[in-house]
Amino acid sequence: MPNRVLVTGAAGFIGRHVAKRFSESGWIVTGLGHGTWSPEEARSWGIGEWHAADISFDSLSTSAVLPDAIIHCAGSGSVGYSMGHPYQDFQRSAGTVAAVLEYVRLQAPCARLVLLSSAAVYGQCGDEAIREDAPLNPLSLYGAHKLFGETLCRMYGDQYGTSSAVVRLFSVYGEGLQKQLLWDACNKAARGDLTFGGTGEETRDWLHVTDAAELLFTAVEHVSSRSPVVNGGTGESLMISAVLEALLQGLGVREKAVFSGVVRQGDPCHYQDDISKAREWGWSPKVGWCDGIRAYAEWFRARRT
Amino acid sequence: MPNRVLVTGAAGFIGRHVAKRFSESGWIVTGLGHGTWSPEEARSWGIGEWHAADISFDSLSTSAVLPDAIIHCAGSGSVGYSMGHPYQDFQRSAGTVAAVLEYVRLQAPCARLVLLSSAAVYGQCGDEAIREDAPLNPLSLYGAHKLFGETLCRMYGDQYGTSSAVVRLFSVYGEGLQKQLLWDACNKAARGDLTFGGTGEETRDWLHVTDAAELLFTAVEHVSSRSPVVNGGTGESLMISAVLEALLQGLGVREKAVFSGVVRQGDPCHYQDDISKAREWGWSPKVGWCDGIRAYAEWFRARRT
Repeated sequence: MPNRVLVTGAAGFIGRHVAKRFSESGWIVTGLGHGTWSPEEARSWGIGEWHAADISFDSLSTSAVLPDAIIHCAGSGSVGYSMGHPYQDFQRSAGTVAAVLEYVRLQAPCARLVLLSSAAVYGQCGDEAIREDAPLNPLSLYGAHKLFGETLCRMYGDQYGTSSAVVRLFSVYGEGLQKQLLWDACNKAARGDLTFGGTGEETRDWLHVTDAAELLFTAVEHVSSRSPVVNGGTGESLMISAVLEALLQGLGVREKAVFSGVVRQGDPCHYQDDISKAREWGWSPKVGWCDGIRAYAEWFRARRT
Repeated sequence: MPNRVLVTGAAGFIGRHVAKRFSESGWIVTGLGHGTWSPEEARSWGIGEWHAADISFDSLSTSAVLPDAIIHCAGSGSVGYSMGHPYQDFQRSAGTVAAVLEYVRLQAPCARLVLLSSAAVYGQCGDEAIREDAPLNPLSLYGAHKLFGETLCRMYGDQYGTSSAVVRLFSVYGEGLQKQLLWDACNKAARGDLTFGGTGEETRDWLHVTDAAELLFTAVEHVSSRSPVVNGGTGESLMISAVLEALLQGLGVREKAVFSGVVRQGDPCHYQDDISKAREWGWSPKVGWCDGIRAYAEWFRARRT
């Protein structure tokens, strides 16, 4: 009998790639979350059954055929959103993790849970690559709420034996992403605006969404009641100015980006991760950043023509 | 014009003493939370207006006259409850703090918030007295959820300037308490059962509820956007066996308590707090533990006759 996976937030940018990845390995995929898409579109991402609903104990209990695995991709998607909507962010992020864990405890105790978390749990870091045991001092409510979710996974493992794993993703991008820096930059460039916040010297680790989905797929094999945590990035730190330069080139823009020098609250300056642990799990990133950024620019250009 | 205070969980054991304390200083007190009591009973605790409702953004917005202070006493009351009802505990504890903070941010930005937290946020400690800057490693979901609430207060202060203070209470007791160790012990003794869990050598710091209410009252003057944290205890650590001996004497029981030696998961062994900071705030405990335990035993005896 094939395995069944429930992907929450399956209509989201990462969620749909996760659904596809499981589907490709023969899993039966149920999707749950926000978003309206046609049955055809959902099926094109490998989703057999789609339920449009808030993630709650009720919606989990009524919509899921007892899953062997749950990949919890639902939740708010950005630091910026959490600044303007802190309460909604709390509910979508920590609140949905609490609901999923309780569903697992009471109704699906054998399900293996993988939580999509974020590098935002680390907060400000130095220039060193971040290991999973680095101090956790989130600078934003987005990061704090993600950390609450991680804590809940660990406590449920400790108290009830719930099996989970936590994947802390860095900057995930890829064709289809319609928010965050790259998307904003493409749209700005399209209207001739090349000014950006920050200094341009901030660094990020850019992971392609197909690599992120592969890591979330891999993590299912590493769940335990100790709720292990793994970083998901490339291990390579890039200055935002360099990434934008590659992006603008891909878009066919000859001018250079200009930075305001004003740093946004809640945004850490430097991020580079140590991915030794993910490599030990048998995963490694496949998409190089130059190829990935170029493909993103091409996708953006194609959708405008 | 007199000050207005909103006390959440005002029908609870600590909440009603808090309401009374504010009322005695001329504050107009509104109560919100679970519990059914007559207008007369609520008034006898100094509560001018009582709203029986879940603590939510909606109930806060519709029931409170713009308060100058909010004392958030609502939430689950014990480690034991959180073990059996982790999801409800999350919602009542962290979820209600999130709602209160959002209410303050959007509708009562000048309100001073005091959060009733717990020594359970510390988790296992050594024999040293616990200062507020001790490591935070809660052993129970009860403690984890309290810590989420504290984190939210700090983050809201950081991001939106919300003024709050956190009071970490140790073992609060007093006449009227109908749960936890002393209550269970009185009831057991009344039916001739003198066996207890644990070893008896666990230590706790027992704070009388009137002292706890006084500290929560005092904390209103110390709120800031840095969300200062203060311990609430006596600074005196007592073995549970000694406390039970005093209690049994007060109840007129001649036999001694017997301990099973089985330690309950989530219950730390030793707790003693450093209350220097609370003393700096001008507060000190007034009720000695012998007097307090004796009064509790007398209250228990009186209510059975």
